[in-house]
Amino acid sequence: MSIVGIGPGDSDSLSPRAFRAIQDSHVIVGYKAYLQLLNGLTEGKQVISSGMTQEVRRVKEAIEKARVGMDVCLISSGDPGIYGMAGLILELLTEEEMGQIRIEIIPGITAASSCASLLGAPLMNDFAVISLSDLLTDRKTIERRVESACQGDFVIVFYNPKSRKRISPFEAAWQILMKHRSPKTPVGIVRNARREDEEVLITSLEKMLEVKQIDMGTAIIVGNSKTYVKGRYMITPRGYELKNNEILSR
Amino acid sequence: MSIVGIGPGDSDSLSPRAFRAIQDSHVIVGYKAYLQLLNGLTEGKQVISSGMTQEVRRVKEAIEKARVGMDVCLISSGDPGIYGMAGLILELLTEEEMGQIRIEIIPGITAASSCASLLGAPLMNDFAVISLSDLLTDRKTIERRVESACQGDFVIVFYNPKSRKRISPFEAAWQILMKHRSPKTPVGIVRNARREDEEVLITSLEKMLEVKQIDMGTAIIVGNSKTYVKGRYMITPRGYELKNNEILSR
Repeated sequence: MSIVGIGPGDSDSLSPRAFRAIQDSHVIVGYKAYLQLLNGLTEGKQVISSGMTQEVRRVKEAIEKARVGMDVCLISSGDPGIYGMAGLILELLTEEEMGQIRIEIIPGITAASSCASLLGAPLMNDFAVISLSDLLTDRKTIERRVESACQGDFVIVFYNPKSRKRISPFEAAWQILMKHRSPKTPVGIVRNARREDEEVLITSLEKMLEVKQIDMGTAIIVGNSKTYVKGRYMITPRGYELKNNEILSR
Repeated sequence: MSIVGIGPGDSDSLSPRAFRAIQDSHVIVGYKAYLQLLNGLTEGKQVISSGMTQEVRRVKEAIEKARVGMDVCLISSGDPGIYGMAGLILELLTEEEMGQIRIEIIPGITAASSCASLLGAPLMNDFAVISLSDLLTDRKTIERRVESACQGDFVIVFYNPKSRKRISPFEAAWQILMKHRSPKTPVGIVRNARREDEEVLITSLEKMLEVKQIDMGTAIIVGNSKTYVKGRYMITPRGYELKNNEILSR
């Protein structure tokens, strides 16, 4: 059984290892919207797809197929190891099954990386990754993590910032950020990275709540105290001492 | 000019976008050890390589070539946006040059993802990424970040944990971790992921300092309060409620 990260979803981001795993499998299991990104790759295979919040059922079906000897490929967008499908598989398999079923986790390009590449270089220094979905983590824990990340002056990457029904964790995070960081702190917002309707925007912390195009397909990167904007890029300095004479020597 | 992430370094991890950018360029610039990973891909091209700590010089040479109209490809291992070359390029370019030179940042699979995929699923919940190199970040800031990440109960990924000469930030981080987390906390250590001499090890926080094979090619993942080991895997639960009857229903 392979748990495969397809990255942001365009075929140019799919690693050869992921491509081969999909090609070599009998059964493809995944969230509908992600399977659509694979285009012709799933042709002639058994496809088991279901909607969001159906993850547990999907993973159980995948294990069922693997137990009877089929080559199963479980698809995650981004990296399966970051809020993806790798965890659920390992949580549900018994130790005995782990010995019987060959498991390969195939990493992919996670949203932090694909979004950062479109914004410039916001992740050049230490950063924290926080999901704002309170479906699986309680609000208190999320808020405590935002608070701690601020205290450490981490750049912060928010996954799952908000959905149509779930807006308050996002607003609560913003209030904590505003207590700790300058309202002028650069904020990068990327929606549907590397897809047809990609949107890339750099704004400031004080204006973050006004941005309309924030949903579950969006990642948000909030700069640390050193992050700045130059041209159309958001940059967090790595810490090199770039003396005037060095820059002039170019 | 492309700033290209090659992932851990095996050709199976190289995205088609990265492959094409390298193929289409006249000049390849990068750290020697990374260029060796590209095998035949650099053949027939001008190669500018230099050792570690020569990053500023390398990037200036790359900009020089791009200014005279050559297609330049600057190589980063992992993701160029995470402690990679993307930042230095944008820090050194003037706004005017940013308008003249076409710049593309091509993301890659970062060490957090490639190492997590070999350990199981340690990054299923919020995590912090911290470099322990004090060459570019001062010790006080590093220690403050380790402390904050502990307070937020983040899983922690350490990049650049130690070199032959630089051991004390690693020991200081360990002391902070031991103050906050159980000595039995699972710790995953991966050296040279996806290379011939790959080493994967799961140990505990109390035994972390005893591990010999930790160097600049190693990433370390320290679990949070919920992380556990099952079989040969390190798992941080995502938060799904997996009730007994659900597990039995498989």
